[in-house]
Amino acid sequence: MKFLSKIYVLFLCVTFSVAAQIDKVEPPFWWSNMHNPELQIMFYGKNIARYEASVSNNITIKNVVKTENPNYIFITIDTKDIPASDFVFTFKDKNKVAFKQPYTLKNRNANSAQRKSYDASDMMYLIMPDRFANGNPDNDSSKWTLEKGNRNLPNGRHGGDIEGIINHLDYLQELGVTALWNTPLSEDNDPQGSYHGYAQSDVYKIDPRYGTNEDYLRLSAAAKNKGIKLVMDYVTNHWGAEHWMIKDLPSYDWIHQFPGYGQTNYRMTTQFDTNAAAIDAKYCMDGWFVKSMPDLNQSNPLVLNYLTQNAIWWIEYADLGGFRVDTYSYNDKTAIAKWTKAITDEYPNFNIAGEVWMHDQAQMAYWQKDSKIGAIQNYNSHLPTVMDFTLHDALGVAFNENDAQWDKGMIRIYENFTNDFLYPNINSILTFIENHDTARFNHSYKNDLSKYKMAIGLIATVRGIPQLYYGSEIGMAGDKDKGDADIRQDFPGGWKGDTNNAFTKAGRTAAQNKYFDFTAKVFQWRKTSKAVQYGKTTNYIPENNVFVYFRTIEGETVMVLINNNATQQTVATDRFKENIGSFTKGEDVISKQAIGLQKEIKMEPKSILILELQ
Amino acid sequence: MKFLSKIYVLFLCVTFSVAAQIDKVEPPFWWSNMHNPELQIMFYGKNIARYEASVSNNITIKNVVKTENPNYIFITIDTKDIPASDFVFTFKDKNKVAFKQPYTLKNRNANSAQRKSYDASDMMYLIMPDRFANGNPDNDSSKWTLEKGNRNLPNGRHGGDIEGIINHLDYLQELGVTALWNTPLSEDNDPQGSYHGYAQSDVYKIDPRYGTNEDYLRLSAAAKNKGIKLVMDYVTNHWGAEHWMIKDLPSYDWIHQFPGYGQTNYRMTTQFDTNAAAIDAKYCMDGWFVKSMPDLNQSNPLVLNYLTQNAIWWIEYADLGGFRVDTYSYNDKTAIAKWTKAITDEYPNFNIAGEVWMHDQAQMAYWQKDSKIGAIQNYNSHLPTVMDFTLHDALGVAFNENDAQWDKGMIRIYENFTNDFLYPNINSILTFIENHDTARFNHSYKNDLSKYKMAIGLIATVRGIPQLYYGSEIGMAGDKDKGDADIRQDFPGGWKGDTNNAFTKAGRTAAQNKYFDFTAKVFQWRKTSKAVQYGKTTNYIPENNVFVYFRTIEGETVMVLINNNATQQTVATDRFKENIGSFTKGEDVISKQAIGLQKEIKMEPKSILILELQ
Repeated sequence: MKFLSKIYVLFLCVTFSVAAQIDKVEPPFWWSNMHNPELQIMFYGKNIARYEASVSNNITIKNVVKTENPNYIFITIDTKDIPASDFVFTFKDKNKVAFKQPYTLKNRNANSAQRKSYDASDMMYLIMPDRFANGNPDNDSSKWTLEKGNRNLPNGRHGGDIEGIINHLDYLQELGVTALWNTPLSEDNDPQGSYHGYAQSDVYKIDPRYGTNEDYLRLSAAAKNKGIKLVMDYVTNHWGAEHWMIKDLPSYDWIHQFPGYGQTNYRMTTQFDTNAAAIDAKYCMDGWFVKSMPDLNQSNPLVLNYLTQNAIWWIEYADLGGFRVDTYSYNDKTAIAKWTKAITDEYPNFNIAGEVWMHDQAQMAYWQKDSKIGAIQNYNSHLPTVMDFTLHDALGVAFNENDAQWDKGMIRIYENFTNDFLYPNINSILTFIENHDTARFNHSYKNDLSKYKMAIGLIATVRGIPQLYYGSEIGMAGDKDKGDADIRQDFPGGWKGDTNNAFTKAGRTAAQNKYFDFTAKVFQWRKTSKAVQYGKTTNYIPENNVFVYFRTIEGETVMVLINNNATQQTVATDRFKENIGSFTKGEDVISKQAIGLQKEIKMEPKSILILELQ
Repeated sequence: MKFLSKIYVLFLCVTFSVAAQIDKVEPPFWWSNMHNPELQIMFYGKNIARYEASVSNNITIKNVVKTENPNYIFITIDTKDIPASDFVFTFKDKNKVAFKQPYTLKNRNANSAQRKSYDASDMMYLIMPDRFANGNPDNDSSKWTLEKGNRNLPNGRHGGDIEGIINHLDYLQELGVTALWNTPLSEDNDPQGSYHGYAQSDVYKIDPRYGTNEDYLRLSAAAKNKGIKLVMDYVTNHWGAEHWMIKDLPSYDWIHQFPGYGQTNYRMTTQFDTNAAAIDAKYCMDGWFVKSMPDLNQSNPLVLNYLTQNAIWWIEYADLGGFRVDTYSYNDKTAIAKWTKAITDEYPNFNIAGEVWMHDQAQMAYWQKDSKIGAIQNYNSHLPTVMDFTLHDALGVAFNENDAQWDKGMIRIYENFTNDFLYPNINSILTFIENHDTARFNHSYKNDLSKYKMAIGLIATVRGIPQLYYGSEIGMAGDKDKGDADIRQDFPGGWKGDTNNAFTKAGRTAAQNKYFDFTAKVFQWRKTSKAVQYGKTTNYIPENNVFVYFRTIEGETVMVLINNNATQQTVATDRFKENIGSFTKGEDVISKQAIGLQKEIKMEPKSILILELQ
């Protein structure tokens, strides 16, 4: 009987959800026993605001909000002590039932709230799904989306999809990947350039050219099965102009209007500069990132709630292992802190890396949770992780420099770390040599493998969470000056008929294998080293363009030497005795050769040595 | 009778102070009624440590310290409630009086403790006394000092002196100077290069080639009479190798030894970098600045006390209006904070500007009193003023740049100010285009008057305490790459027979007068503008390489526009309405012309406009 009633409700659900009066219910379902018992459900339908709503099962309606657009109604219910169940919203017109809408609270997965997330023990891999692998050529275009697949257009849809990622999880595992960040997979219905996914048109739906919501769940489960945490790229700052709500705004102030389009000045310093002109601060925060991306007004509580619940919905629904948040420091500063806090209140161990693209450590540290610099202005973003853009900047030029100047070469890189004390949690910083918005490292350095090894060896061994960008590991290049498409080329082997299949040893060129083998070796080893994951760092001022540092934890000591000279160098070890202590040799984690520490260490030109001391 | 006894004591003083047993008593005298009643007097004489000391007038000896060198004895007395008076120390050998030493506590000047010091209302002028004006050719050499006068040597002693400064106080007054910082005037007996004065050999005595202690008092009084505060350049970090105490060290650890000489690495970041190797931090702090300057160990309480009392002695003795402290961030960090606190405890309004030569605002802000960044490490330097080296860096290149890049041209200068919130007291920052250690602005910019005007107009109107370096105001150039001497050339007109006398309008060249007239006009006007001295700043993001900012206080508004283009620019005023408000015009403080604010302002190429709004 109980079983039957469930079936009956499911039937109702299907029936009512296509009722003409209600076009959308968001979130489409929720969970029982959440930390925050309040749930604000948005019902969307022609003139729905004229109806009076009630709900079954003795559930309390805490508040009903109607906006200036009669097609929306926002109903907040209290789910405290409500078990997983199905219930029904009834909409009446002058005391007469007009239509009903079922709703479901589901049971949460075991230990959902306390889920683990990515941290300094992980290696994160960043994929642009359209450019990685085309697992299902049948979904390259869809009837629901405007832009059709065309691999000939550099900025077109190339057909990469979720199936393509699932097919190559083995490859990622072989590389040492333990966290997977995809650029957004939700629907982006822009008529062109939609492949990047940052102009979302429906944030509850995977873009059909990537697959379905269910495909995304399959990816999550398959990745988890291989020890890989799935990290969603969440966009709070803006939606695409094609978003269905943008086309029928709940309220004028759902987005920032000037009226209509106004361009951001991109000067994020105005977010904390006490001397910034008010008009500059406003344009930074409220201005649109680009014309096709209307800027969401998170200071409107309905917007903030919508974004918060959507984010939590994906975590709970797709069993996510973390977020990366786009353009974090362009958001309304107060509101984004509330958003971040709400999520980490639900999931205390959940990691969120915010894109805080600044060029000054104090400015980046400002945005990390419990920042003492933020506290100067009584600001706390609650953001667990920021990105080490200043390290990225240094890595992009230092390997072409010598030490003839006070601040060049390895000194430039070393100096990035001298401000580590500004960060409240320096282990929670994303380190990277490139991402989908920057110059390709191997372009800047003209495919010089030795420079790649120094850079990758470095991000694998300094504090923080190393992040690779797809293709780095096979030496993919690309020129940012030619436009974004050039740094977002298709991964070779991801498309049927690709002559070069870089997913397999046999398919890779000799050059690609050199890149891959080093990368995989370093990151597989990194999984075993608590010292580089969580250890204390000791940096030695680079001398003669050679940088030496140590990572130590509970008896484990790793010594890293980077020789940035085009000549051999001999490094006397006496200076390092406070770290070398009674160790007598170090095992090179790449060659597995033992190297004596007694007097000096010979370094090949432009090379890195990572030694486990013994 | 009372009068007679005083004369008698003075007589005793002369008699005893030349007694063979005592060669030095330091401080040579002190004052009654100081905030800190403890006074530690150092007695120096052959084997003086074997004697037992006592003191007259019922004064309490709180403590006697003897070191490993028997030629020193340090006696701490309690001066609390002891009136200004003369008293006598008696030194006994086996209960038999061996010799006596008179000592004097003087009356303090009225309001000495609460003296005013320099602040954002001042303009500070930096002189290298050896290179400014030779007022007394008779003291170019002295029999007590090794290096003799020789104006033909770029690094030699040129003969400038205190008398030369006194003679040209009118010139400084005409220029708008209200605070005068001289590089050190105490004795520097180095055999060569002694003109810079940073290798001091006796910190209680003016170098005879500059004059006498009494000449210094005359300078102080004459300057005060012209509204100019005298600022001493104090050196806590090191003394010269010729210092008499270095030659007969009170203890091995009076200076930092490795043993003997060890070179600093100059990496001041190791002072707060939690990951710095201990050996690097030690060499930064304890290493010698150069070989001829032994590094003082301020963590030795005797050393710290000696330096503290010497500093206070000069303030009280010479009626000083402030300090500039050399190489502040090379000192023992904890000890220098104690030193700074002790001085500002005695003189709560006394300003001290520390040379914190770093290239990152968070790192500079670390060193300012009550810094929230210092507080991350529970550090408080108590230092009231730091120097805006990052602004200096930006000013040195920005005027040759356009805005084609994200961070160049006026944007580079603007960005310096976006971190102002990091400083606990942004009004207490020294702004400058050059000093005695940097490239000469007019060399870098090839004597381009228009760039000089933009830079000087800027430091005269942004927050902080503007500081000029002698000669800037007449367009003096000099190439740092040729060595320090080239940026420290003699001021023309300071020497008898100089054909160009830049101290007078008639003596200056036409080009020099253009520099001087602009500089004097700006800084004379600055004295009248509370808005630029203490006002709130509003910065507008530079557009098209034009930077516009406002300073406002109690109804006064100053608008500054800097056009860094080689072409005329028209600046629409609508964007600035939050500051322009109901003002309709601005008076150009240089030309005194009125400029309308209704629609737009025309800017000449490479020019600055400073407008008082009306």
